[in-house]
Amino acid sequence: MHADIITQRVDGLDVAAVYDIHAESAQAVADTIGCDRAETVDEIMSSDVDAVAICTSTDTHVDLAVAAAEAGKSIFLEKPVSLNLAEVDRAVAAINAAGVPIQIGFNRRFDPGHAAVQQAAASGALGELHMVKITSRDPAPPPIEYIEVSGGMFNDMTIHDFDMARFVTGSEIIEVFAKGANRVDPAIGEAGDIDTAMLLLTHENSTLTYIDNSRQAVYGYDQRVEAFGSKGMAISENPRPHSTELHTAAGTQLEPIPYFFIERYTESFTNEWLAFAEGLTSGNMLLGIEDGRAPLVAGIAALKSHQEGRPVKTSEITA
Amino acid sequence: MHADIITQRVDGLDVAAVYDIHAESAQAVADTIGCDRAETVDEIMSSDVDAVAICTSTDTHVDLAVAAAEAGKSIFLEKPVSLNLAEVDRAVAAINAAGVPIQIGFNRRFDPGHAAVQQAAASGALGELHMVKITSRDPAPPPIEYIEVSGGMFNDMTIHDFDMARFVTGSEIIEVFAKGANRVDPAIGEAGDIDTAMLLLTHENSTLTYIDNSRQAVYGYDQRVEAFGSKGMAISENPRPHSTELHTAAGTQLEPIPYFFIERYTESFTNEWLAFAEGLTSGNMLLGIEDGRAPLVAGIAALKSHQEGRPVKTSEITA
Amino acid sequence: MHADIITQRVDGLDVAAVYDIHAESAQAVADTIGCDRAETVDEIMSSDVDAVAICTSTDTHVDLAVAAAEAGKSIFLEKPVSLNLAEVDRAVAAINAAGVPIQIGFNRRFDPGHAAVQQAAASGALGELHMVKITSRDPAPPPIEYIEVSGGMFNDMTIHDFDMARFVTGSEIIEVFAKGANRVDPAIGEAGDIDTAMLLLTHENSTLTYIDNSRQAVYGYDQRVEAFGSKGMAISENPRPHSTELHTAAGTQLEPIPYFFIERYTESFTNEWLAFAEGLTSGNMLLGIEDGRAPLVAGIAALKSHQEGRPVKTSEITA
Amino acid sequence: MHADIITQRVDGLDVAAVYDIHAESAQAVADTIGCDRAETVDEIMSSDVDAVAICTSTDTHVDLAVAAAEAGKSIFLEKPVSLNLAEVDRAVAAINAAGVPIQIGFNRRFDPGHAAVQQAAASGALGELHMVKITSRDPAPPPIEYIEVSGGMFNDMTIHDFDMARFVTGSEIIEVFAKGANRVDPAIGEAGDIDTAMLLLTHENSTLTYIDNSRQAVYGYDQRVEAFGSKGMAISENPRPHSTELHTAAGTQLEPIPYFFIERYTESFTNEWLAFAEGLTSGNMLLGIEDGRAPLVAGIAALKSHQEGRPVKTSEITA
Repeated sequence: MHADIITQRVDGLDVAAVYDIHAESAQAVADTIGCDRAETVDEIMSSDVDAVAICTSTDTHVDLAVAAAEAGKSIFLEKPVSLNLAEVDRAVAAINAAGVPIQIGFNRRFDPGHAAVQQAAASGALGELHMVKITSRDPAPPPIEYIEVSGGMFNDMTIHDFDMARFVTGSEIIEVFAKGANRVDPAIGEAGDIDTAMLLLTHENSTLTYIDNSRQAVYGYDQRVEAFGSKGMAISENPRPHSTELHTAAGTQLEPIPYFFIERYTESFTNEWLAFAEGLTSGNMLLGIEDGRAPLVAGIAALKSHQEGRPVKTSEITA
Repeated sequence: MHADIITQRVDGLDVAAVYDIHAESAQAVADTIGCDRAETVDEIMSSDVDAVAICTSTDTHVDLAVAAAEAGKSIFLEKPVSLNLAEVDRAVAAINAAGVPIQIGFNRRFDPGHAAVQQAAASGALGELHMVKITSRDPAPPPIEYIEVSGGMFNDMTIHDFDMARFVTGSEIIEVFAKGANRVDPAIGEAGDIDTAMLLLTHENSTLTYIDNSRQAVYGYDQRVEAFGSKGMAISENPRPHSTELHTAAGTQLEPIPYFFIERYTESFTNEWLAFAEGLTSGNMLLGIEDGRAPLVAGIAALKSHQEGRPVKTSEITA
Repeated sequence: MHADIITQRVDGLDVAAVYDIHAESAQAVADTIGCDRAETVDEIMSSDVDAVAICTSTDTHVDLAVAAAEAGKSIFLEKPVSLNLAEVDRAVAAINAAGVPIQIGFNRRFDPGHAAVQQAAASGALGELHMVKITSRDPAPPPIEYIEVSGGMFNDMTIHDFDMARFVTGSEIIEVFAKGANRVDPAIGEAGDIDTAMLLLTHENSTLTYIDNSRQAVYGYDQRVEAFGSKGMAISENPRPHSTELHTAAGTQLEPIPYFFIERYTESFTNEWLAFAEGLTSGNMLLGIEDGRAPLVAGIAALKSHQEGRPVKTSEITA
Repeated sequence: MHADIITQRVDGLDVAAVYDIHAESAQAVADTIGCDRAETVDEIMSSDVDAVAICTSTDTHVDLAVAAAEAGKSIFLEKPVSLNLAEVDRAVAAINAAGVPIQIGFNRRFDPGHAAVQQAAASGALGELHMVKITSRDPAPPPIEYIEVSGGMFNDMTIHDFDMARFVTGSEIIEVFAKGANRVDPAIGEAGDIDTAMLLLTHENSTLTYIDNSRQAVYGYDQRVEAFGSKGMAISENPRPHSTELHTAAGTQLEPIPYFFIERYTESFTNEWLAFAEGLTSGNMLLGIEDGRAPLVAGIAALKSHQEGRPVKTSEITA
């Protein structure tokens, strides 16, 4: 998907070469977009490309990010940086030492609707910000095999919402209270995870943020963000594929909201690459490595809160 | 309904006495609201009431209006004034001669949504007005016995829309083109009437108005008004009884729009009486007898247009 | 307001007499609706009325309820029953001993939109209920003098939401986590109260409920309820006074949502009296005295949670 | 735009070569998408491409279509086919003689919202179709130089709506009544054209269609389609770029609707090429050459109706 977007929609970026641990997958992408296939990661790191996009499985992120930093490459890094805070700190150190620009792949910041909420908050149109509400529900749970290696719902799903909370409030999370439950599928509970959660966050600037998550909203991929302040409120409601209404004796029927995350967030994926291209030119990336670290801290605090039944300060969480 | 509204919701108005050709009906109303029952119309006309409300069957309107005018009473007169233009002119003459204030019962002008559209047009918020669109559809056709004495759909249903067109544009109708059809129920066609129609009106100030009517919109009482001008557009959409949405795998379901005209236009009925009370005090009625005449002229022109297959000037219509 | 509604809109109920500590206020009501004015409370309790409506200031509720119970009257009792749990228990004991029917004035249960959400949950249309979200924000804070005697925001404002949470989930609240803040007006903080809050509730049936409150939503009286379950979601969105949209070069403008609680909840106030009338006949009241007690327990738990920075079990709260 | 869409989004189609009377324009496209530039039209017609896309100025359509038909190529032909009915008939004859598949570029049929309305009508979900309403307003008028060669508003703008009317009703237009006006810009009137119009169409199957057009809707590109039948109504409302609402003391503000036709109809342009690719494979094109002829007949009838002040049968219009 990223390779397609870069090739087709982003002026100023081109894919020089692609590497995948499964050579066939890499070859398929190379054939489709007409680029080289690298035999090794080193081949890419030692080439003269300006930037590398690290979109591999989470456990490989830090090694690759460190390698890229040492090679002096600009970096696009998919979230989460890592499920291990010490590892994240290793990446932070390497990137800061190298001084290379990096953008973390929190694509939702680039969704036009959510971005308009953040803009309303940041511009002062909402006055002083008091409360943020984030609802983020998947249409259906992933396979249990995925759940087992996901790092748990707080680090797999909520991590996006921790980022959104920081984005909209423009302020760090200092406390997390989380209630998790296993309501969707007992197998998820048996795998040691939860599938339903509500969280309350306190930010440094006194704003309160509410988040809820579910692994299964049968009506679609439910993604809403609301910001409330002294001068008003902005809400990013769920968009619809089209605006046709059907009126019958049974009432008015609207189109279902989007079901797939790619469908829902298409524009955000394009926009994050446009921002990356712009950042390469301007030297000013919108989502630095610290934006990859803070959500993981919040995720770890959330799990601790859920397990211990008390609010947890993010300052309690250390590598 | 009117007696209830006056009694319960309109300060400054009270029902002194009620008359109905069916004494039992009158008595029931008198008992409910605690007023007198008049034995005869004369009893009311010769009493010291300030105003009379003529809400009887259409064929009695003119005689009663003339009697009220001659008795010097202020008048509330239900629409249509009459189905016969010469009769309307007789009422006009009597009322003008007596100089009594009169308000015609075109309640829809007092609907908050439609009134907001008119206000947007009249205030200049829409700039110069270019086009008006009115959709007005009943949930179900009346009994055939009613159809037979209704004066035809243009004078029974569209008459409201002719008034709305004059209200929103603030300009007289000079030409009518009407296409009628019998699509809902063959029995209506056999009774000599139509049940489906589209009309294009030209106003003196060059605004064009579109109207459509149906005797049967199975999804409810569909009442919309739109005004379009050089600076924008205002639309009065159908309200809903409440704002609850149901989201399931099948999509999003909204409440049906109101089905009954009383439910849809409750506020307008109260508001027209508040306006009448205000008019009695200020001497300034919003809907004079000429507002009762013009829609009938348009209705007669519409029927002629439908029958002759050509646009008809309202100047062609004479008593 | 209640006297007006009973008189004008509720068949089967009539106001026999009214008492107020300020005789002039009582007389004004008596004059308007045409009923007696009682000189003393005893006059009412010892009369042959079927029911008494206790709509006085909170600190008088329990004494009056006990007196009414002992007089064998059916009771309509405004919320909150009391700010003191021992006092509530005294009322509970008296009412249970007398066996008289009672309805607590939690009018929002009778709002058509919120009731449709509860109905969707109770009917099984939403499947198993997982999460409830309640947003309840006032348009402007009350005077500081009111704040000072209000019992605090949790018992003054949130109490409605605790009731709504119990209503929609059909399940008792077993734990409360509350974060309060003083963001709207420093004077409220100086008066020892908060004006902004987020809460997470856990119910006996495992449903989680989120509530947020603000004393000041400048865009109007923001009242929303959402229920989410295994088969779908129902949302009661804010209604609008009418459905007219204005489209200009600046975008699309909708009418503001209602500002005053009486405007927003008009129908609910009528509906609660219709339910009371129905309950008098059927002997089946929808909101018993226990529905007056549980929200106070939750309110006390909320304050404790806010003060102690930890989730509080409602079982910790005793009279 | 078409070259981009074909290259990037349509599997199974590729652009082999591009020709433009301005060689530089053709070269720019060729460079961007990586295809050949043809020196002459013949070079394309005599090559082994399967299909040609004729997207040139209107006055060249017929010659090119005839040449393509004679060369045995499948054809994509932009609308209008021609402003001259005899010329259209020449194209019809050539295409029918050659038996080549052709798709006319009425892209709006492929808009997901409008297509859902047509689907509701065609599937029987609306019962028997009684009325169709089409509103189609541009955000701003084109330059006067364009107006002068446009063939007039009925053939330039309304032609899309005539096609939409035939698409949604599935029935030929047999009569047109049109009222045009010059309200937006006097210069348009001086150029002999109108800028504002309302039309009533009668279809062979008795459905009535209403159309309105304006050259200037300051709030955006207003494109709505409504179908009403015995079982219900479907409306394709204007979509919005995103679903964020801003609530302030001034009311609720929604995003403006799209302003540019490319923005509004992006999906339809992609979808029409997907349909063309599918038609090349299946041999079954959705929009044949007769779909290019009928709207022109309606456009000529509309102008005649506007000029003569009477409804005009399409059977009156001959080449």
